[in-house]
Amino acid sequence: MNIPVMQEILSANDQVAAQNRAAFENASVLALNLMASPGAGKTSFILATAARLPPGVRLGVIEGDLASRIDADTIAARGIPVAQINTGGNCHLDAPMVRAALPALPLASLDLLLIENVGNLVCTANFALGAHLGVVIASTPEGHDKPYKYPGMFASADAVVLNKADLLHVFDFDLAYFRRGVEILNPDAPFFVVSCRTGAGMDKWVAWLLSLRELRVKS
Amino acid sequence: MNIPVMQEILSANDQVAAQNRAAFENASVLALNLMASPGAGKTSFILATAARLPPGVRLGVIEGDLASRIDADTIAARGIPVAQINTGGNCHLDAPMVRAALPALPLASLDLLLIENVGNLVCTANFALGAHLGVVIASTPEGHDKPYKYPGMFASADAVVLNKADLLHVFDFDLAYFRRGVEILNPDAPFFVVSCRTGAGMDKWVAWLLSLRELRVKS
Repeated sequence: MNIPVMQEILSANDQVAAQNRAAFENASVLALNLMASPGAGKTSFILATAARLPPGVRLGVIEGDLASRIDADTIAARGIPVAQINTGGNCHLDAPMVRAALPALPLASLDLLLIENVGNLVCTANFALGAHLGVVIASTPEGHDKPYKYPGMFASADAVVLNKADLLHVFDFDLAYFRRGVEILNPDAPFFVVSCRTGAGMDKWVAWLLSLRELRVKS
Repeated sequence: MNIPVMQEILSANDQVAAQNRAAFENASVLALNLMASPGAGKTSFILATAARLPPGVRLGVIEGDLASRIDADTIAARGIPVAQINTGGNCHLDAPMVRAALPALPLASLDLLLIENVGNLVCTANFALGAHLGVVIASTPEGHDKPYKYPGMFASADAVVLNKADLLHVFDFDLAYFRRGVEILNPDAPFFVVSCRTGAGMDKWVAWLLSLRELRVKS
């Protein structure tokens, strides 16, 4: 009974996502949709990325949360342009929310936009925002079985990041088992093992980001 | 546009939840709905609880996951009756799923049923399953800001558990800030700080569980 309505909602969302994408293209901004469980380290990942970008690359951030401005305040304290979206009870960002947030950002002068979605390893994968790429960030405390239990997210992501790698041993995290789970679902996705705390692996991630043809740094 | 349909779905769910509750009451089974982020340690919490129950208390488990039988196999290996629900893409259990799983359990001979919901700190709070109590399990790696960012879950839970307390210092987890966030939303909820790994705090949790008037152990 609810399926036709769901399809209508998705279609309307996709239309706005296409408009968002056009806005990013017009402004020559590479946009990434960062998805993860609550507490996987999305905000830390944004900050660790920002700290490693060459001076010429201008970053903007959209923070998505059910409530609070905690993450936006953290980002703003680093001097990074940021817009906070509060979804109320909604378990994911959608394209109209992102569209409504864009006027708060100096899009024309940005090169890279990182959109931090709501902490949710399921619903966020189902709603296009207009971003060029979707990135899932897993973390070692969550356990190595997550690709097997949440296949939709890992199958649809354009890149997979495993954060808190400095704690692999603390959580008896079987990296080969995790990686095999990702590869079954998504054999071509670039895979990055990082620690936002120690910085390990972040240079490789940032090098990949800078290599993307969609990233055109304004001179 | 989608709101009336959503209300219809919720109402239908609530009707089945009431039937589930009646089935639990008829069988004299206390049922708990365990909700948490992915990887917070729900399955470990079930095992740590099981290990501390007096011999006379008979436990059954329902495992909810999008995919896989990983958790059900872990529970079954301990000799505990278990039913696995795979939701497909669905981000939460609902009452009809639980109803469909009940015939796989020896309900009449159980005293306690622990229902492990899908790993999701948002959607699971919105769907009654028929359980007597809803318990949210947070964990220290997720960070101390979770009550502020996911207020719906923490406001509606009947008890709050903080797991992985042995790693408080590893994550610079501010316990007072976390607890204040819970108390603002839900001042009367019992609050348990535990480590399923070390067992710390588990006796207090199990003592509370055994003190609940809904738990009537069959002789």
